[in-house]
Amino acid sequence: MGFKLTILGSNSARPILARRPSAQILQANQETFLIDCGEGTQLQMIKYGIKSSKINHIFISHLHGDHYLGLVGLLDTLALSGRQTPMHIYAPPMLEKVLDLHHQISGFPSPYPIVFHPLIADQSRIIYDTPELTVSTVVLSHRIPCTGFVFREKTLARRLLKAKTLEYNIPFTDFHDIKKGNDYTLPNGIAILNHELTDANRPPYSYAYCSDTAYFPDILPHIQNVSVLYHEATYLQDKISKAAIRGHATAQEAAAIALQANAERLILGHFSSSYQDLNPFLTEARPTFAQTYIAIEGKTFDFKDKEWTNEL
Amino acid sequence: MGFKLTILGSNSARPILARRPSAQILQANQETFLIDCGEGTQLQMIKYGIKSSKINHIFISHLHGDHYLGLVGLLDTLALSGRQTPMHIYAPPMLEKVLDLHHQISGFPSPYPIVFHPLIADQSRIIYDTPELTVSTVVLSHRIPCTGFVFREKTLARRLLKAKTLEYNIPFTDFHDIKKGNDYTLPNGIAILNHELTDANRPPYSYAYCSDTAYFPDILPHIQNVSVLYHEATYLQDKISKAAIRGHATAQEAAAIALQANAERLILGHFSSSYQDLNPFLTEARPTFAQTYIAIEGKTFDFKDKEWTNEL
Repeated sequence: MGFKLTILGSNSARPILARRPSAQILQANQETFLIDCGEGTQLQMIKYGIKSSKINHIFISHLHGDHYLGLVGLLDTLALSGRQTPMHIYAPPMLEKVLDLHHQISGFPSPYPIVFHPLIADQSRIIYDTPELTVSTVVLSHRIPCTGFVFREKTLARRLLKAKTLEYNIPFTDFHDIKKGNDYTLPNGIAILNHELTDANRPPYSYAYCSDTAYFPDILPHIQNVSVLYHEATYLQDKISKAAIRGHATAQEAAAIALQANAERLILGHFSSSYQDLNPFLTEARPTFAQTYIAIEGKTFDFKDKEWTNEL
Repeated sequence: MGFKLTILGSNSARPILARRPSAQILQANQETFLIDCGEGTQLQMIKYGIKSSKINHIFISHLHGDHYLGLVGLLDTLALSGRQTPMHIYAPPMLEKVLDLHHQISGFPSPYPIVFHPLIADQSRIIYDTPELTVSTVVLSHRIPCTGFVFREKTLARRLLKAKTLEYNIPFTDFHDIKKGNDYTLPNGIAILNHELTDANRPPYSYAYCSDTAYFPDILPHIQNVSVLYHEATYLQDKISKAAIRGHATAQEAAAIALQANAERLILGHFSSSYQDLNPFLTEARPTFAQTYIAIEGKTFDFKDKEWTNEL
């Protein structure tokens, strides 16, 4: 239980052997979310032990190839594996045409339902809502419509103190009600306050995925106070003009966003293929935002761990 | 100069870490042809030192994902690299819609011309013809329309005997004419027969690519006497019924085709993901056709080499 983020790809569009294009797995309690799906993502999942059969929701930020070209192959593989469970896809509307066209030309219609949720390009809104979690979109600033995703856990139920339930001989059937925050009335009519019976749970986790985007403070209200912000940093500061022209950000700009958003931690990714050594991204970001990390492929960032490193 | 075949992928559809989906490079004299382009092909090219910029002609056999899903990413990468040269694509007609749709939705029209040559599914015909080489299609037997490709070098010009040109003091400007097979007349009117001035060149090379297909003797007239036949062998003989149902062949069936086609050598590929050890494919094929080899990724088969091995 909890939130764990596994990086499958952290490179920008031009392919290199050292890194793969964008893709991440967010394990949010019981759910396994796939966020972006560049070419080769399904192989990265095999490599890093992610079971693709567990994914029921896929989020695609935009339709540049390095963010979606692995999707059709992944969906095909799930079909070959005999999947029956519906797959929910949240993506720009035109991606549905891509999937339909492939299913038509491959002579291989999907044996499981694909439930397509078209994103609205210029509006931030909730697109997923369960008792545990919401996912909302955030409008980014890129060359084509591009959407970030913010995953926010809802406030967790209070934790029952086992010793107290024994002390007051509280039956199991009343536990759920107490966890929700209610007081408990003993058979003799005496009320026991909820705070005596329960402890506060940990604060809810939240994760914001912002790729690709120029430095764009309009996103701040949507990503405020997140536990972890993933923000693209395609370039270092010496290419700040190029970044702006191409709708990308620098490491320092990403750090400035993390600071203003009051994020707890920042992960940088979507690195230009021209960089082999990624340490300068930390060197440039950390003076502004100390809790900055690198999206290293194969690495899992566990939100409950107090100490993160940049090692695999 | 000559023919060299480099295997980039030799696996069937379900992805595994050990092998990649179908893709090959045929270096035929000056030309670099890409044949099929499964997901991840561009990365395989980087890994094995193939310069994608040199490719001007791409041949796609059919529209199952494991044969074409790497194409869009490759074309994008060439665009990012500033390509201007036209790219010729020979493929089933609907692939053009896939490319058009991607260029539309990615907001990134191709900066170089894409010349699309739609294949005719049920007809074998010449689709490429230069003074050096023809490429013709061959109708295969698969679950959806699937086309094989036969690359046939034309008869090579005769080789001039340098000693003879010196002996008869023949000027450089007459060399081309003699290589074409003409006799040479000395200034004194005496004719020197071409056979005294030239040697026969090596026999022309030819290569047939047949993937995916069931055992289908209808292809024999089209692939007769090829230097090298690549024939799919998705399964071993114990799965011959499964192979037939799925429009695939076994190693032994591929060997039978090679034998009947009077091919010089046979390369097997498109192996089912369920096989880790590929040696049984040789064990089953070689009693029928001794000159059988395995499509090992990264391996280059040079047609001029008399001895081939199954080692990298």
